[in-house]
Amino acid sequence: LAAAKRAGRVRVPTHVVSSICDDRGEEPTYNGVSMSELMQGDATVADAIGLLWFKRRLPGYATKFIEMCVVLCADHGPCVSGAHNTIVTARAGKDLISSLVSGLLTIGPRFGGAIDGAAQYFKEAVDEGWEPDEFVEKMKKRGIRVPGIGHRIKSKDNRDKRVELLQRYARTHFPSTRYLDYAVEVEGYTLQKAANLVLNVDGCIVGMFTKVEIDSIVKIGYLNGLFVLARTIGLIGHCLDQKRLGQPLYRHPWDDVLYTK
Amino acid sequence: LAAAKRAGRVRVPTHVVSSICDDRGEEPTYNGVSMSELMQGDATVADAIGLLWFKRRLPGYATKFIEMCVVLCADHGPCVSGAHNTIVTARAGKDLISSLVSGLLTIGPRFGGAIDGAAQYFKEAVDEGWEPDEFVEKMKKRGIRVPGIGHRIKSKDNRDKRVELLQRYARTHFPSTRYLDYAVEVEGYTLQKAANLVLNVDGCIVGMFTKVEIDSIVKIGYLNGLFVLARTIGLIGHCLDQKRLGQPLYRHPWDDVLYTK
Amino acid sequence: LAAAKRAGRVRVPTHVVSSICDDRGEEPTYNGVSMSELMQGDATVADAIGLLWFKRRLPGYATKFIEMCVVLCADHGPCVSGAHNTIVTARAGKDLISSLVSGLLTIGPRFGGAIDGAAQYFKEAVDEGWEPDEFVEKMKKRGIRVPGIGHRIKSKDNRDKRVELLQRYARTHFPSTRYLDYAVEVEGYTLQKAANLVLNVDGCIVGMFTKVEIDSIVKIGYLNGLFVLARTIGLIGHCLDQKRLGQPLYRHPWDDVLYTK
Amino acid sequence: LAAAKRAGRVRVPTHVVSSICDDRGEEPTYNGVSMSELMQGDATVADAIGLLWFKRRLPGYATKFIEMCVVLCADHGPCVSGAHNTIVTARAGKDLISSLVSGLLTIGPRFGGAIDGAAQYFKEAVDEGWEPDEFVEKMKKRGIRVPGIGHRIKSKDNRDKRVELLQRYARTHFPSTRYLDYAVEVEGYTLQKAANLVLNVDGCIVGMFTKVEIDSIVKIGYLNGLFVLARTIGLIGHCLDQKRLGQPLYRHPWDDVLYTK
Ligand SMILES: CC(C)(COP(=O)(O)OP(=O)(O)OC[C@H]1O[C@@H](n2cnc3c(N)ncnc32)[C@H](O)[C@@H]1OP(=O)(O)O)[C@@H](O)C(=O)NCCC(=O)NCCS
Ligand SMILES: CC(C)(COP(=O)(O)OP(=O)(O)OC[C@H]1O[C@@H](n2cnc3c(N)ncnc32)[C@H](O)[C@@H]1OP(=O)(O)O)[C@@H](O)C(=O)NCCC(=O)NCCS
Ligand SMILES: CC(C)(COP(=O)(O)OP(=O)(O)OC[C@H]1O[C@@H](n2cnc3c(N)ncnc32)[C@H](O)[C@@H]1OP(=O)(O)O)[C@@H](O)C(=O)NCCC(=O)NCCS
Ligand SMILES: CC(C)(COP(=O)(O)OP(=O)(O)OC[C@H]1O[C@@H](n2cnc3c(N)ncnc32)[C@H](O)[C@@H]1OP(=O)(O)O)[C@@H](O)C(=O)NCCC(=O)NCCS
Repeated sequence: LAAAKRAGRVRVPTHVVSSICDDRGEEPTYNGVSMSELMQGDATVADAIGLLWFKRRLPGYATKFIEMCVVLCADHGPCVSGAHNTIVTARAGKDLISSLVSGLLTIGPRFGGAIDGAAQYFKEAVDEGWEPDEFVEKMKKRGIRVPGIGHRIKSKDNRDKRVELLQRYARTHFPSTRYLDYAVEVEGYTLQKAANLVLNVDGCIVGMFTKVEIDSIVKIGYLNGLFVLARTIGLIGHCLDQKRLGQPLYRHPWDDVLYTK
Repeated sequence: LAAAKRAGRVRVPTHVVSSICDDRGEEPTYNGVSMSELMQGDATVADAIGLLWFKRRLPGYATKFIEMCVVLCADHGPCVSGAHNTIVTARAGKDLISSLVSGLLTIGPRFGGAIDGAAQYFKEAVDEGWEPDEFVEKMKKRGIRVPGIGHRIKSKDNRDKRVELLQRYARTHFPSTRYLDYAVEVEGYTLQKAANLVLNVDGCIVGMFTKVEIDSIVKIGYLNGLFVLARTIGLIGHCLDQKRLGQPLYRHPWDDVLYTK
Repeated sequence: LAAAKRAGRVRVPTHVVSSICDDRGEEPTYNGVSMSELMQGDATVADAIGLLWFKRRLPGYATKFIEMCVVLCADHGPCVSGAHNTIVTARAGKDLISSLVSGLLTIGPRFGGAIDGAAQYFKEAVDEGWEPDEFVEKMKKRGIRVPGIGHRIKSKDNRDKRVELLQRYARTHFPSTRYLDYAVEVEGYTLQKAANLVLNVDGCIVGMFTKVEIDSIVKIGYLNGLFVLARTIGLIGHCLDQKRLGQPLYRHPWDDVLYTK
Repeated sequence: LAAAKRAGRVRVPTHVVSSICDDRGEEPTYNGVSMSELMQGDATVADAIGLLWFKRRLPGYATKFIEMCVVLCADHGPCVSGAHNTIVTARAGKDLISSLVSGLLTIGPRFGGAIDGAAQYFKEAVDEGWEPDEFVEKMKKRGIRVPGIGHRIKSKDNRDKRVELLQRYARTHFPSTRYLDYAVEVEGYTLQKAANLVLNVDGCIVGMFTKVEIDSIVKIGYLNGLFVLARTIGLIGHCLDQKRLGQPLYRHPWDDVLYTK
């Protein structure tokens, strides 16, 4: 824009600048690709994500991997913060969007939002050339839990199936699994500390990307977007489910609250 | 639940009832189907939607159609209410989820939310056996605009490409196109009234479903969910786009506001 | 752009019209009243509400009554839907606004949002000249619960203190209590049906208004605004409370969920 | 469940802990103070805030000051991000809460959310004993703009009236104005750099507090709560305003968008 203004190309600077989708012509285009082209090319949801988020056509193994992530992260039962808040709002008689949104807002550092954090720290560790054990100990000194490691229920002998499935796909199809290998080594070290310090879904997803990708991912924060999109499917599902079941207003039971000073 | 209680099977009624996803076992299941099964079957995003929203495995032509809808509705440029609010929030320096949510909340009767309304009225019309012209006139008398008909920009001679693409797919692959045929007849009649009273995307999507499906759709409200999910992709895209472009705080220009009494 | 528009304003209509607050001059004005005037007049929160919502200076008994409503509705413990969702979001480590909003979104027909509904039906009843018993029976035939009547816990012999306090104020200070008298007569009739069909806070607040006020209230929907504003205080309180208490991520207990088909 | 828990409560810890409002007794209490006491004591909105946020009865000059802040921050016209998004959502035909929330979500580092930041840095500066000029230069070296300083429109010769009014009150009624004096000295220094680097409302509000208060404020983040609550009044006002004015769907004008790559 600055350049355009200087060049005198734009006399009245617009108040909005946008680059992903142009709706002015015959048909809307996603990063320059028209609807007809998309349909003729049998575009999938992941292709649309590639064009609208990453602004390019992603290779087949990447779109397939994105679809797997979306399917695997779509839901994780009614007890987690997100589903719970959506259920409570749906039971208060509110519309689909209010219910969805009330749940989405719980996604963050403690629930579902560890992916970007994991990307950031793993990148730093690999960039700096830290050994896995060195990395874990450095994080400990800083007082930060390694994002991407640890699970409340899963453990060494009761692995998270989703992590196994993603890993298997990556090892078979990906040109490189550098971060993944690193992440697995980190897990090897943390598992010596406690049985539940396994590589979790967030950490595993990060492991899938290449160095170049991770760099731009860390700068912008794409990865939480993936979790948010995936879980939107589950939250909408929970809202529809409660409406179908005709559930009444939720009130948390008094005797489950400690009223303190 | 009532039955279970009566039968004495449940002594302490739970405060939550849920039916779409079980996360208690070895691996989470979506309506009974495990993650491993999903991965082995090369499940797509639409398969996850089928299990979590409709609680069943959808046939191939239906999942393909859902994917098309998601791709086609993923975005429609930066000017519509949803994208605009997401852009403003992202430019206020807020996180991805706040920005997404601020945009999602604009979806409703006037923006993107006409799908369920269309389903409801088309169902009524077909159930009651009204002729297309009869239906349109009845709606007029009630003072309700036919949802699914009309577009601010597109018209008879400048059709919405997305509508054409969806129709073509349906006519080739669907076992029945009863509602679609009806919708097209309605359009035929409204186009005599004004050139912009075309069948729009909302109306077209509704046309795709069979009678049985429409019945349950109308009861629960699935269809807005589809638009909401699709547009989530675009809204996340707009948020990332603004952050990449480093756009500053938006302030609406004073001279574009009429300060009235 | 500005210059071009100024030169021919009639041809470039503004895209926004607004009437409550003008920020273009020396100091912002609320419906024409400047900040300095407000401060000199010792304006209270209710005065700001009067100017920004109702667009006029409210009489003293009305601002006092609004303040009472805000204080009385500010919170109702951690168990109701709104506080609960705010608590869950705060415990997921999210910021103040996300936590507040997640709770606000539960307000609606079943929680806190009955005030406008009550205004609507009471107005109809008084306008039509229905006797209290006639009104209740008519509502029954329509299959609608009388909004403003009924409480899950309070009853005939265990009145809601807040209702008593509001009533006492109104009887002492209000020029007329027409709707309130009507509401109390309705309660007299419903209490014969069941002991918990008392006049609740929502119904009582409605009772406070005069005929002219109710007419505009019903058209626009001011009253839910009052509840929303009041409860915002409580929800922010709950968010700060959880952060102070350092509460960890909430996960609903598995054994309190009935996993059904 | 209740009985089982009561019998052995130590073994079943509650899932929720809460300390601000108890709704179990005859009447709800805010930090131990009952509704009747509140009414008898002519409690204002600020008294409720004191009990529910700060967990104590605030002295008269503090509640009066809180009321002034709420009144002064209640609205700032239709052009700022918050009001704008609320207006767009209201014009999309959405309900009051969705409209309010869509606007609230824009509050943050760049819009209205600088109060807690200002508290944090001013506290550091005073604690460390930095001179005002030293503080400003240190912030510059860190590459952080001094929160609480600077305004897009107001300047040295066109002061923000709201800041003047708050200052005047503080100087007359407050036992100490230590931070305020410091803030004014900071402004004195920054004004030498540029005419628009005035003390803004956010900075001024922070200046009002004493050292003890600031310490707890910085830890928990109360102050943004005050802005959020105040602006809730304005946002609700804008939503009602648009509905009264019957404004149609907003679409940002195409020619105000730069479609870039
Ligand atoms: C997922 C998580 C919340 C589970 O925590 P938990 O099992 O309840 O952990 P606890 O709080 O009981 O901690 C147990 C011990 O493991 C340590 N620990 C937990 N997670 C750790 C991690 N990611 N890295 C290093 N140490 C960790 C704790 O410091 C604690 O050690 P201590 O007893 O010496 O203080 C936690 O592992 C975590 O925060 N991980 C990082 C964020 C993340 O990836 N989240 C995934 C969301 S799906
Ligand atoms: C999409 C829509 C907002 C476009 O409206 P518009 O072109 O700005 O329409 P206008 O308000 O200028 O109306 C022009 C005339 O067409 C009529 N009209 C518009 N949409 C109509 C509809 N869906 N059915 C019947 N008549 C309609 C209007 O009543 C008006 O007639 P009049 O001049 O005799 O009063 C409108 O067609 C509509 O509300 N459609 C129904 C909802 C829907 O499907 N929305 C799609 C969202 S993608
Ligand atoms: C507040 C409320 C949810 C409490 O309901 P509840 O005590 O759980 O009521 P139940 O569902 O057990 O109903 C008990 C009986 O009272 C009747 N009843 C409940 N509220 C009624 C009302 N407002 N008007 C008329 N009849 C009512 C029910 O129809 C039912 O009768 P039935 O057994 O013959 O079918 C309910 O009274 C209500 O919906 N009120 C209207 C909305 C309102 O004002 N809400 C206040 C929010 S603070
Ligand atoms: C309010 C604000 C956005 C106005 O900014 P603006 O007038 O558009 O400022 P610009 O971006 O044009 O900056 C002009 C110059 O002033 C400097 N400046 C602006 N605000 C500054 C501050 N708070 N402290 C120090 N320097 C500041 C800029 O660095 C810039 O200097 P440079 O030209 O040497 O780079 C800005 O002052 C700010 O961010 N303040 C801090 C946050 C705050 O308190 N916000 C209040 C919300 S009500």
